[in-house]
Amino acid sequence: MRIGFIGLGIMGKPMAKNLLKAGHELKVYDVVRGNMEELVDAGAWAAGSAKDAAAQAEVVITMLPNSPHVKTVVLGKDGVLEGAGEGTILIDMSSIAPLASQEVGKACEARGVRMIDAPVSGGEPKAVDGTLAVMVGGDKAAFEQVKEEILLKMAATAVHCGKLGAGNTTKLVNQVVVALNIAAVSEGFMLAKMAGVDPELVYQAIRGGLAGSTVMDAKVPMILEKNFKPGFKIDLHIKDLNNALETAHQVGAPLPLSAEVLEMMTNLHFDGNGNDDHSALAKYYGKLTGESI
Amino acid sequence: MRIGFIGLGIMGKPMAKNLLKAGHELKVYDVVRGNMEELVDAGAWAAGSAKDAAAQAEVVITMLPNSPHVKTVVLGKDGVLEGAGEGTILIDMSSIAPLASQEVGKACEARGVRMIDAPVSGGEPKAVDGTLAVMVGGDKAAFEQVKEEILLKMAATAVHCGKLGAGNTTKLVNQVVVALNIAAVSEGFMLAKMAGVDPELVYQAIRGGLAGSTVMDAKVPMILEKNFKPGFKIDLHIKDLNNALETAHQVGAPLPLSAEVLEMMTNLHFDGNGNDDHSALAKYYGKLTGESI
Repeated sequence: MRIGFIGLGIMGKPMAKNLLKAGHELKVYDVVRGNMEELVDAGAWAAGSAKDAAAQAEVVITMLPNSPHVKTVVLGKDGVLEGAGEGTILIDMSSIAPLASQEVGKACEARGVRMIDAPVSGGEPKAVDGTLAVMVGGDKAAFEQVKEEILLKMAATAVHCGKLGAGNTTKLVNQVVVALNIAAVSEGFMLAKMAGVDPELVYQAIRGGLAGSTVMDAKVPMILEKNFKPGFKIDLHIKDLNNALETAHQVGAPLPLSAEVLEMMTNLHFDGNGNDDHSALAKYYGKLTGESI
Repeated sequence: MRIGFIGLGIMGKPMAKNLLKAGHELKVYDVVRGNMEELVDAGAWAAGSAKDAAAQAEVVITMLPNSPHVKTVVLGKDGVLEGAGEGTILIDMSSIAPLASQEVGKACEARGVRMIDAPVSGGEPKAVDGTLAVMVGGDKAAFEQVKEEILLKMAATAVHCGKLGAGNTTKLVNQVVVALNIAAVSEGFMLAKMAGVDPELVYQAIRGGLAGSTVMDAKVPMILEKNFKPGFKIDLHIKDLNNALETAHQVGAPLPLSAEVLEMMTNLHFDGNGNDDHSALAKYYGKLTGESI
């Protein structure tokens, strides 16, 4: 298919590459022109704007940092909607606020563009391997049309969760759970440390039971080795938790614990730890005790 | 071996039965005399007191509700230390405060009784199957002596984590992590519900990713079915979180999120939900929103 791909950051670049490998024809765009080089070398066309990337494309994919970027790139001057023809499918794979998805979706509808929101989980390694998890909301027929040929070339799973915005709501739930599961091991293992029990032994003793989690197996070894190379950065988790709280405030959902973890992460951001992996939340407990797990 | 087994509640009864099945000779005691019947029918001797159960035993096992019960049964009148001979091994399998273990251990040492603390994780089903996880602190030689023949007749794993009290510290870490992982799914899935996205679809979309956990797979289906049959009761988790906070306050570990979950569980206790499974923490979020996940 002819795909316009906009946003070639850490995630977008390998995702676009996997679409090229799958035999799609890509026209790519990024505000940082240098980000396009690798893709152009690999066989993609270079676009001069988002509008240009969208023109004549059957499918437009956006992979951008947050809600304002998506609004600008889709709705703004020289944006997707100026270029996209009627019937084009817009797949916004950015992780943004669900209500922003719905706002953008309305404008798309008025122009005959069919939008789905399809944020991903899995981070850079899974983007490279093409094994991301995609959570989708919006036009079900459009989803079915792009699922096999496009989404599953970048991802291992793609689940349709409901109306437009449902993909991002699902992603926010994911980020709330991950944040609290990281807080759980940080809080628990600091208790072990302060009580004089070797956290490594505690890990071995409890990982197979009800306390076990993907976070525990992925992050506790990192915390014990003091290896906070991302992975997924604290600053990005701050963005997602802010979006979760904004959404929660709009729909009346209480997030008391997530709000507290957001405060912890924000405190770490101001300490200069924003580019650490989110497992560096353990450092917050370290600041409070003067010890590291 | 000749084993005195004290405390035949929901957990103690099946654990004692597995020891009988393994060919050990048991003398059992419980303050509720009726609790002894099943074991006596299965071939155990009935003791008239904890002292009586401990007399002539090579190993004494206690499986009691909380720290005060262990202190009374071991140190009190007609207690274990009045009956136990020098060299007896005391295995306290109750989940109690680590400092209480150390206090009891000191009195044992003065009488030549070798103590290990060995709380379990896994609940009644795993107690019946003999597949509990045991976390152990204290006399390492005593641990090695009873590991194969006794502990692994009741459990699938038994890990030595450090000095006396380390077993209970490890159990508290386990309970902190489990409590926060339950809070994570409660908070996350209520966000999905309030935002109008089907929690069942969210579960399918995120369970395979970084948000996945044993708690998610064990408890989210229960929460979605509104099935809060225990499992592990809220009232017992309240006890464990109180012990965790007491310990944390003594060693200088911060448990801000666990303290908040304890408040939530305590609120549910006063609503009459203390005998519900701990996954009923979701009901707290239900009270705040007037909706159920």
